[in-house]
Amino acid sequence: MKQAKVRLYVEQGLGEGQTIPLVRDQAHYLFGVMRMAVGDPVLVFNGRDGEWYCEISIANKRNGELVCCKQTKPLQMPPDLWLCFAPIKKARTDFIVEKAAEMGAARIVPVATEFTNSERIRQDRLQAHAVEAAEQCGGTYVPEVAELTKLERLLTEWPDGRQLMFCDEAEVGAAKQLAASSAKQWAILIGPEGGFSEGERAKLKSLPFAHVVSLGPRILRADTAAVAAMTIWQQALGDWS
Amino acid sequence: MKQAKVRLYVEQGLGEGQTIPLVRDQAHYLFGVMRMAVGDPVLVFNGRDGEWYCEISIANKRNGELVCCKQTKPLQMPPDLWLCFAPIKKARTDFIVEKAAEMGAARIVPVATEFTNSERIRQDRLQAHAVEAAEQCGGTYVPEVAELTKLERLLTEWPDGRQLMFCDEAEVGAAKQLAASSAKQWAILIGPEGGFSEGERAKLKSLPFAHVVSLGPRILRADTAAVAAMTIWQQALGDWS
Repeated sequence: MKQAKVRLYVEQGLGEGQTIPLVRDQAHYLFGVMRMAVGDPVLVFNGRDGEWYCEISIANKRNGELVCCKQTKPLQMPPDLWLCFAPIKKARTDFIVEKAAEMGAARIVPVATEFTNSERIRQDRLQAHAVEAAEQCGGTYVPEVAELTKLERLLTEWPDGRQLMFCDEAEVGAAKQLAASSAKQWAILIGPEGGFSEGERAKLKSLPFAHVVSLGPRILRADTAAVAAMTIWQQALGDWS
Repeated sequence: MKQAKVRLYVEQGLGEGQTIPLVRDQAHYLFGVMRMAVGDPVLVFNGRDGEWYCEISIANKRNGELVCCKQTKPLQMPPDLWLCFAPIKKARTDFIVEKAAEMGAARIVPVATEFTNSERIRQDRLQAHAVEAAEQCGGTYVPEVAELTKLERLLTEWPDGRQLMFCDEAEVGAAKQLAASSAKQWAILIGPEGGFSEGERAKLKSLPFAHVVSLGPRILRADTAAVAAMTIWQQALGDWS
């Protein structure tokens, strides 16, 4: 097998001999930008069938086709971790979604809190960022980006058994108790710039499934906090340990 | 004391009754952008004298002055941690510097490796990012951004006793041994996109002061890796523990 320079997410099922038609953007990227040709290798995944080594079988500017040759990785599901966060400025929201995919979140949930500035998100654009991050980081799974949900509703409809790691900048605590948990379903909640309101903070602390974790003595931006919190969780309970 | 909305880094010494002339950019920000006036509070730090509550005593568009009233925080030095990283694209390099200041690095060292794309950095611009991040995160210290240094030279001139945490994506290891170290002087080294060369990797692994740490099963971008590695270090050995 040749060394593949490109990794693509596709929707089709993958299996030996399967052909994969390329959409216009993919054809443009492979043939227009990357100057690839018939016979060149591409790694492909669809979030269900692992990663496959494919070769280009048709290369036209507006369309093209791959043929699946050999599975190179089995499907590797991330741990059952949700990253819930309050959307902030566009570039930093994009960044949080990218980082959640790289760090191995299974689901990304934008949450509207009292101090959230953004009332809307572009769910399709954020989902595209998650796809791109999965292509880049070598993962075989793309986390789903959920619709923007109000914090109150998220907590009211909270699934039984899922634990919540909540990073409170006012809290001086440690993350050590996390590793003792036997729960397999978790979520991390990152607040907006300006933090949670007093009411939200009291509500969160009163929840029986909430675990407060400190992120050190400095105040972290939401995007930094998201990566730091996922690192702590992955080390204590996830697939880094 | 009133609630201060602005935190400023200044160069002058701070002490009760001390006046602080503002430079033009600061005056523009306080009076033009934030619409502040005489008597309004500003928190100020200089990296040496802690944080001080000041009040505006002169407010002109092109200049202004603060008066120091009361110390609100002592100087809090971060742990003696260097973040060494290979500069990448501009936005992501800026981001790494911002994150290093927020996460509590004492010194930021841009490093040229074999696979580093950027041959130059704008040291003054990166230093300004570190100042802005320190203003924002509530720290009382601004990490120094060093000149771009070749990796080979950095390692040849490596200071006695400083340990090096090196994140190798090819390595399957754990971070648990870190916490057992009694060393107080550390550095984290983050490689460029494309990773280290085989020669660099062999050299790094052979160093008696190097500790290889894994950042999980997915390939992280350099900016993600920087935040994740600093989280692991701060939790094990720094001021988060």
